[in-house]
Amino acid sequence: MIDYMPPFVSNIDLQSGIITDAASVLKRSISDMRGLYADANAESALAGSNPLVYEVYYGTNTPEVEGQLSYCTTVLYPGKVGDEYFMTKGHYHAKGDRAEVYYGLKGEGYLLLQTPEGEISAQPMRAGVVAYVPPYWGHRTMNVGSENFVFFAVFPTDAGYDYGTIAEEGFASIIAERDGQPAVVPNPRYKSSR
Amino acid sequence: MIDYMPPFVSNIDLQSGIITDAASVLKRSISDMRGLYADANAESALAGSNPLVYEVYYGTNTPEVEGQLSYCTTVLYPGKVGDEYFMTKGHYHAKGDRAEVYYGLKGEGYLLLQTPEGEISAQPMRAGVVAYVPPYWGHRTMNVGSENFVFFAVFPTDAGYDYGTIAEEGFASIIAERDGQPAVVPNPRYKSSR
Repeated sequence: MIDYMPPFVSNIDLQSGIITDAASVLKRSISDMRGLYADANAESALAGSNPLVYEVYYGTNTPEVEGQLSYCTTVLYPGKVGDEYFMTKGHYHAKGDRAEVYYGLKGEGYLLLQTPEGEISAQPMRAGVVAYVPPYWGHRTMNVGSENFVFFAVFPTDAGYDYGTIAEEGFASIIAERDGQPAVVPNPRYKSSR
Repeated sequence: MIDYMPPFVSNIDLQSGIITDAASVLKRSISDMRGLYADANAESALAGSNPLVYEVYYGTNTPEVEGQLSYCTTVLYPGKVGDEYFMTKGHYHAKGDRAEVYYGLKGEGYLLLQTPEGEISAQPMRAGVVAYVPPYWGHRTMNVGSENFVFFAVFPTDAGYDYGTIAEEGFASIIAERDGQPAVVPNPRYKSSR
């Protein structure tokens, strides 16, 4: 006899995109992202005010076993470090073959993806855009607008996180402002190990 | 060397909830659902007009392998068969341990879930409600409002479909109108094999 997990629901506030009854919340400020932005001086200049960059509202606390899913909404605040837009830390999945689905709820953002060999894909996102993170692609999002960029994500709970590779190597490209517009430009701090 | 699947996006029309660039579309009318509604006479009475009950817009065409995900939006039209609200066929996953996530986009609906032993759970849904279909639960949705009920779903591509069990046994409960309100009531046509 299987011990069935009971169904459950979460509630997303339609104005803010926040899961109001979240199981857990993660908050990341500039101090949690040392060395990830391309402009080290601009990063240091923000150390004092240490602005909040993003919040993740997790609706689930499902077990890390095959077949289970997790979901969350991410609220990424507007801002820049130098000319580089506020972004998430970014990660690969520890189980590399696990995909992920993003659904844009509010604001203007980018999903930046990278293969382990450094091939880049940049997908503009806004409300109504669904983006597929295929297996093996590292992924990170940017807020390129003036209001909060908010998206809903679903991923296999057993995907796990590999933050270390991104922290050490970075992404081959960044999203930075050029002539008042977001542009995909080479990352001067990128260190490929491949 | 892995042959990486390229990232891709889909676009959901914010007014209708339809994926405008869907990879495929499924449409189901009353004639595709013979024997699923509780009131056989009311079902027969609709055979002539054969109204469209729901449409599924699939954004993905991902391979049925572990780790891949699929997503779709379902547009469930308002209507009733007798006093039972328009609903989807409903299914278990062929791989029973695969979960699913629903996100309400528009309208008023219900998610009805059932274990293989016939335990029922009924979750009201509307825009902003996220519902978790845990492993092993059969699932079906109803439109209990007067406009389209639309929701976004994400599931592991290798989950597969078992429609046969629902077609043969039905759900132990139906959602029917009682005193002008949706109510969870026993299904007179339910045939448990357990």
